[in-house]
Amino acid sequence: MPAPSKVLRAAPPLTTTKGEQTRALILDHAVRHAAVHGFEALTIGNLAEQAGLSKSGLFAHFGSKEDLQIAALDEAVRRYNEAAFLPALAAPRGLPRLRKLFEHWLEWTERSGLASCPMMTAAAEFDRRDGPMRDAIEAHMRRLHIELVKCADMVKASGEFDASVDTQQFAFELFGIFMAYYRAHNLFRDPHAAPYAHAAFERLVRNAQTPPAPARRAASRTP
Amino acid sequence: MPAPSKVLRAAPPLTTTKGEQTRALILDHAVRHAAVHGFEALTIGNLAEQAGLSKSGLFAHFGSKEDLQIAALDEAVRRYNEAAFLPALAAPRGLPRLRKLFEHWLEWTERSGLASCPMMTAAAEFDRRDGPMRDAIEAHMRRLHIELVKCADMVKASGEFDASVDTQQFAFELFGIFMAYYRAHNLFRDPHAAPYAHAAFERLVRNAQTPPAPARRAASRTP
Repeated sequence: MPAPSKVLRAAPPLTTTKGEQTRALILDHAVRHAAVHGFEALTIGNLAEQAGLSKSGLFAHFGSKEDLQIAALDEAVRRYNEAAFLPALAAPRGLPRLRKLFEHWLEWTERSGLASCPMMTAAAEFDRRDGPMRDAIEAHMRRLHIELVKCADMVKASGEFDASVDTQQFAFELFGIFMAYYRAHNLFRDPHAAPYAHAAFERLVRNAQTPPAPARRAASRTP
Repeated sequence: MPAPSKVLRAAPPLTTTKGEQTRALILDHAVRHAAVHGFEALTIGNLAEQAGLSKSGLFAHFGSKEDLQIAALDEAVRRYNEAAFLPALAAPRGLPRLRKLFEHWLEWTERSGLASCPMMTAAAEFDRRDGPMRDAIEAHMRRLHIELVKCADMVKASGEFDASVDTQQFAFELFGIFMAYYRAHNLFRDPHAAPYAHAAFERLVRNAQTPPAPARRAASRTP
């Protein structure tokens, strides 16, 4: 984890009530806890202990474990947007922006002071359950997917990708690279995780620039 | 989930004690539960209720929640080996075996009557924690990774992949395809998940067969 001074922090609103400050403090603890332990382990009890608050104090802000889980997930997505997605929009449309989005995505958890990506964990924990938490992570992941597709569509529109590229397929594969990166980086603690991810991204981009030649047909010279 | 008759089941050993049968019953419930709810949600209490046993009965087999989690993970890996890995070894070494392993991997949870891949969930839940459960899932995932690398090495040895292919990189990317498949299939319930995964696999294989031409150098005709 980077030194606190290097960690990107949201500027606090100029005026906040005591209640808003407490809620922000709780959510900060919640997102950090979920990044390590997942959302199933995010209980009112253990969070109250960490944040130095009473359980009843926490219940005043979040009526249930599920409300707390969803609020923590929303906060994680807000940090992703702030650290990865929005800064990428400063790059010119097309391949430069796609490349920036890729680079920021690999770095955003570290830049946000988080041990891992809470959305990836939530997706794995809740993808086979039913209920509001599943609905929330599915909606967030669909938005991320759609943004990747849009970004790839712009690369096609700029002519930097071949017109035949299936951008849904492209986004599917790009997401796989992020997930493989997290497994290598977090689970294997592999120092090559980022170089592997970059090499995979470059291969994906290269293929989209120059798709395989179509099967050669016998030339017909008869009219 | 396929009809029970189509689900692959391990043949029970010819002689089993009552204790072994109970342990197998508990683990069956545990693996199915973890495939839906993850391992953090796998408690002695809710499992006893599902298996129709007393809590003390479960404690006689698994001394702690952690013992139970690790035993359930081991059982999931045993099922993966039985349904995906071992049958792939029947295919000839080289590309046919790699292809079979890929196909079986996409199908193994369904063939085993599981809602999802428990190892993928465990990796996301425990990759940033410390302790025996993290060590167990890391060890299992490293074995899976090594098997993929070995399988790709054999394709190189057979001459079906170019000699320049980095099989660690290949395995990294192949794993990403599996993870992207689970996200599309489980979280998005996308009917195109398997076609996307197959197309990504074919692109990966095609690139390994014909790597990009090296940058052209100016021909030197002077001696």
